[in-house]
Amino acid sequence: MAGQPEHKTPGGSESPEIPGDAINVGLLGLGVVGGGVAATLLEQRDAIAARVGRPVNLKKALVRDAARARDAAIPTDLITTNPEEILADGDIRLVVEVIGGVSPATQYLKDALAGGKHVVTANKEVMAKHGPELLSLARQNRVNLLFEASVGGGIPIVGCLMKELQANQFRSIRSIINGTTNYILTRMANDHTDFHQALAEAQEQGYAEADPANDIEGIDAVYKLSILAGLAFHHRVAPEDIYRQGIAHLQPQDFRYASELGYAIKSLAIATLENEDIQARVYPALIPLGDMLAKVDGVYNAVEVEGGLCGRVLFHGRGAGRGPTTSAVVGDLLEIAAKLDSEPAPAPSAAPGAASPPERPWRIKSIDDLECKYFLRLNIADRPGVLAQIARILGEQNISIASVLQKDTNPAAQTAEIVITTHPARESSVQKSLELVANLEVVQEISSLLRIEE
Amino acid sequence: MAGQPEHKTPGGSESPEIPGDAINVGLLGLGVVGGGVAATLLEQRDAIAARVGRPVNLKKALVRDAARARDAAIPTDLITTNPEEILADGDIRLVVEVIGGVSPATQYLKDALAGGKHVVTANKEVMAKHGPELLSLARQNRVNLLFEASVGGGIPIVGCLMKELQANQFRSIRSIINGTTNYILTRMANDHTDFHQALAEAQEQGYAEADPANDIEGIDAVYKLSILAGLAFHHRVAPEDIYRQGIAHLQPQDFRYASELGYAIKSLAIATLENEDIQARVYPALIPLGDMLAKVDGVYNAVEVEGGLCGRVLFHGRGAGRGPTTSAVVGDLLEIAAKLDSEPAPAPSAAPGAASPPERPWRIKSIDDLECKYFLRLNIADRPGVLAQIARILGEQNISIASVLQKDTNPAAQTAEIVITTHPARESSVQKSLELVANLEVVQEISSLLRIEE
Repeated sequence: MAGQPEHKTPGGSESPEIPGDAINVGLLGLGVVGGGVAATLLEQRDAIAARVGRPVNLKKALVRDAARARDAAIPTDLITTNPEEILADGDIRLVVEVIGGVSPATQYLKDALAGGKHVVTANKEVMAKHGPELLSLARQNRVNLLFEASVGGGIPIVGCLMKELQANQFRSIRSIINGTTNYILTRMANDHTDFHQALAEAQEQGYAEADPANDIEGIDAVYKLSILAGLAFHHRVAPEDIYRQGIAHLQPQDFRYASELGYAIKSLAIATLENEDIQARVYPALIPLGDMLAKVDGVYNAVEVEGGLCGRVLFHGRGAGRGPTTSAVVGDLLEIAAKLDSEPAPAPSAAPGAASPPERPWRIKSIDDLECKYFLRLNIADRPGVLAQIARILGEQNISIASVLQKDTNPAAQTAEIVITTHPARESSVQKSLELVANLEVVQEISSLLRIEE
Repeated sequence: MAGQPEHKTPGGSESPEIPGDAINVGLLGLGVVGGGVAATLLEQRDAIAARVGRPVNLKKALVRDAARARDAAIPTDLITTNPEEILADGDIRLVVEVIGGVSPATQYLKDALAGGKHVVTANKEVMAKHGPELLSLARQNRVNLLFEASVGGGIPIVGCLMKELQANQFRSIRSIINGTTNYILTRMANDHTDFHQALAEAQEQGYAEADPANDIEGIDAVYKLSILAGLAFHHRVAPEDIYRQGIAHLQPQDFRYASELGYAIKSLAIATLENEDIQARVYPALIPLGDMLAKVDGVYNAVEVEGGLCGRVLFHGRGAGRGPTTSAVVGDLLEIAAKLDSEPAPAPSAAPGAASPPERPWRIKSIDDLECKYFLRLNIADRPGVLAQIARILGEQNISIASVLQKDTNPAAQTAEIVITTHPARESSVQKSLELVANLEVVQEISSLLRIEE
């Protein structure tokens, strides 16, 4: 669509060949993504009109500070600082929200839906926290609420779970859905930089914010996993249902040991459905080097879903940035626009999600019940019998050791670093045994506890 | 959807909670995929009704031989050998075609569309050869024609090009879309088997047909690439516009040399749009080992599209088989069913593709104009000055040599095998120089000519 060679002046009049009234769009937010959406609507006006069947007209764009410099291509008369110029305008049938954050975005979305406007949002935090309520409001008002851009940027996973892959019952989602952490971990793995250096680089490159907590502590990934799990399992998985661990404690030697053992370390967002139990977690974990997810490098994202019919399907692409997010937002916008009829309220059957399946009877399982292999890195006193003491405690908790690496002996301090991998064990047993191990006089520090996801 | 624990007797009555008349479906073909579709519709009846908003009822299934043994779960009164019982039944609003082949499927599809029935097809050959005509017939009759299952099995690439990624102008498609050849090439690369042995194994495993020509000669991939390129570039790319080379001439040493040079060999289906020129080709080629496509093994498929906004997005999954193909067919079917209103003919705006963008002004470029690096394997006389003669001919055609490997000298026959890689060169120049090289008295055989896709 973006390929029409000729295009009209931004804000120009309707193409004469295109029948039908224009569809007026209100844009909430004109930052990086909002600018991309506005530019696409203005520059690709004719191509979009040809695709949709009538013009799609950017009527107003909400900004916080009207004085701030904008892309010169956006006419100033489109810009407003008053949300009511969009939310209360009966001629605007479709609202795009790219402000981010919970407030005031949530209220804007509610007002738009309650006012019978279709909505496209890129807001993962709002969809994770208030998605069910907003989707229900959309159904009541017989309008669409689409949110492809809320997860995975240019990766079309949201739409695929709702449409192309809807015939499947999904058993698992395994994903890398935070580009910032993946960039940091890739640097740490490939170039042996430490966490703080890799983070500083990510900030220089513009991949990490000045306050990086949302990314490196896994909060952003939790929001996204909450959205994906809800779509895949037809059951609410709230952010607080998801176990979360950040990446700041990882050290270069974790990557070195993992690699020796045949694994990469990636921050994974995983949700599984097994025997009516959903378990969801975001943490750095070891995955076999041969796994496709181990090959996802830098700021790229990947999502692998496993469905009853389709088997494992993996999506790989850019998870953030102006272009990919604009692709997702405009894709949603065109999908709604192409189906809008001339009536103000479309028939319920025309609204995707109108006939949403009922919530399933699944239970949310605690991280304590997780069963997987573990990777432990410990600093211990370098003397005989230490491993035996640790092994005894693990054995008493029914944890069987798979391998032991002893490295980096420090003769001056008389300490050594050991890495233990286990056979599948229960999280609660592992945690309990680690408490006991930490209390051993010969153990200086439990430096890492990572799960092995195979 | 497939997860509802309880389900009714196949063919049972409508769920009382679900309002609305049932949507009657006719199924053309009851082979592996047809059986999967029928089983899903019958076994997941309640879950589908909840999702769609009313029951989806499998009314008839066309078979060639009524006496053949079927899945016991399919009631015999649903089976017919007369296509008119589906095509002429006004109560059937949606037809699923999973027969395959051009005839009689094309006529059935035309009859169904002309009769105002929505159609879901898995037929790549028909969509590649007659897609534009059928889509136009669908638009005239204000019905949907969806064909997710025609390319990539469980990979939702068809729908994503039409919907989720529609905001993009695409610059390229690079794909592995024939699982049979990918299985054979994976075996040849990993286990040094020769082509005939790997093919025999693929046949034993059920991955290759008794007559494997369609797969190993690249015909199947040409059909699929024709469909994908048409969707991505909004321009017809007919099967005959696509350059095609099979894999039967590859030998184990090609994989060995490629690997030494840092490449894998994969049968790629590639289409590019550059400066208004489309170029499309299916052939075995070298790709860098670090490329995601190099990691696609066995019967898996992968499609990577590059869009102006989304950048590179890669899809990876199972490209064939009952489950993945059923996932695609039922996904299309549910998408249509969820939007069907009670009127026999839906409004044009409700039909995806109703406002199809106009065909673009692109030109189809011949393989002669391709420019890439090349990999040549030659058998030559093992004596001084031979390489100089070959290098002179290449130089006269403006082809610059990047590397030369000389291996596998056979002292008895006084021959040697050399592998030459070139810097980017024009296909027509390479072909012309190879004619001249082949005529050299010192050259016994040009064993391989492969392109390097980077």
